Amino acid sequence: MKIINNHDTNPFAEWHEKVGTLPHFAPGSVWLVGAGPGDPALITLMGYHALRAADVIIYDALVSNDILALANPKAECIFAGKRGGKPSPKQSDITDQIIHHAKNNQRVLRLKGGDPFVFGRGAEEATALVRAGIPYRLVPGITSGIAGLAYAGIPLTHRDANSSVLFLTGHSTTGEVPDNIDWHAAAHAAPVIVMYMAVKHAHTITANLIDNGRDPNEPVAIISHATTPKQKLIKGRLFNLPKLAKRAETPAIIVVGKVVNYQKLLQWRG
Amino acid sequence: MKIINNHDTNPFAEWHEKVGTLPHFAPGSVWLVGAGPGDPALITLMGYHALRAADVIIYDALVSNDILALANPKAECIFAGKRGGKPSPKQSDITDQIIHHAKNNQRVLRLKGGDPFVFGRGAEEATALVRAGIPYRLVPGITSGIAGLAYAGIPLTHRDANSSVLFLTGHSTTGEVPDNIDWHAAAHAAPVIVMYMAVKHAHTITANLIDNGRDPNEPVAIISHATTPKQKLIKGRLFNLPKLAKRAETPAIIVVGKVVNYQKLLQWRG
Repeated sequence: MKIINNHDTNPFAEWHEKVGTLPHFAPGSVWLVGAGPGDPALITLMGYHALRAADVIIYDALVSNDILALANPKAECIFAGKRGGKPSPKQSDITDQIIHHAKNNQRVLRLKGGDPFVFGRGAEEATALVRAGIPYRLVPGITSGIAGLAYAGIPLTHRDANSSVLFLTGHSTTGEVPDNIDWHAAAHAAPVIVMYMAVKHAHTITANLIDNGRDPNEPVAIISHATTPKQKLIKGRLFNLPKLAKRAETPAIIVVGKVVNYQKLLQWRG
Repeated sequence: MKIINNHDTNPFAEWHEKVGTLPHFAPGSVWLVGAGPGDPALITLMGYHALRAADVIIYDALVSNDILALANPKAECIFAGKRGGKPSPKQSDITDQIIHHAKNNQRVLRLKGGDPFVFGRGAEEATALVRAGIPYRLVPGITSGIAGLAYAGIPLTHRDANSSVLFLTGHSTTGEVPDNIDWHAAAHAAPVIVMYMAVKHAHTITANLIDNGRDPNEPVAIISHATTPKQKLIKGRLFNLPKLAKRAETPAIIVVGKVVNYQKLLQWRG
């Protein structure tokens, strides 16, 4: 479709007319925004609004170019993720940078993949902002642990399958399997377990679950590049998860549970 | 702000130019869409697009009027939620209605509060669509169990607090506390427990958690009308949750865990 290039078009005109004004992005403030799981159309209206209003955008590796294309053309875009074999920037350096630009009276958009408060480090960044006396807003984003399953046709919950779901991260900030998970309880708390950043340590995590009584034959799925055109699904059984993980691309979400069986029926993407 | 009433404005013109076209909402298909937690600006771009394209919108009680105001003015909007003291429409009647309109070659938007696959009944509706041979798309929405906490200033995860989160529903489709939860495991699987529809049975759930070893003095919060201007927060201790729940308005999210302690520091709403 050919669209006339018109930068004066305000995508929120209809919104303003029918719903009201969106929150004011004040100079000197920081918005901590979740960009969503990958599909740019899963960003929120509030996130889109922030992109168009920001003076400085500090973004992570999981934020897509499509989303950055929507940014205010005058905004300074600063990459703060891990790239290639290089180490990630230190969290304290990122935080310092956010604070520096806010103190320069810029509208600072801190843009993270997924949701800032779901195994991101949003809480640490928010804490630093409060301590520095900088006003901030939190804009949730759709997390890949929910949307990745939906795009694969796997229901996170199903009346016939589960009344609970356990989310866990397979990778602590030290790079190891988290040491504060009670694996016996984790194995039994919910018929569905959704794991973030668990590919690297799939071997240990699988052993922890099976040794604590999880059925080795339970269905599992690995969803790589969730909700993007590159999304890939690998299905199998829990006992085989370490092998499946070896051929999975990252970033990936791992799901354990009988809900995976609905995938064949419910998968809706072409 | 005074905006000129111009129904020809396309809020997606900029999007089309910079990112590409949004998926085509084909006549005879159904989009199962999450409207998000309450704040209309937390709907996704994809959800907004669906609202403007739909011929028929079948919506739940938790979908706000602000969101419906964005609908295609020619769309037929059908309420399918629980109202006042009246019983909810039967799930099978809702499903029949969705299928009926799709078979009449309408673009049918099934709009649910939050996310359709998070303790909604999206999986059942999707199954019925597949069985009826009707193409459908799943559009995730932000769930109140994540956004409600964020709007209250409570991080769902914090590096110093938790590597796992348990989501559970306090209300099965029979109206009772779900009978398929291992409460001992639930009490120990995660430092943070987020409970949906748990106000009514707070007494039983609290007893189940404490009897199975959860610390009675652990902080809890009840967030009512999450992310809306009516949002209310009640904080206390787990042992006292049944009493707190008696004065909580619904819908509400209950969160148990030390992350509630960050609320005082991180609360950012006026």
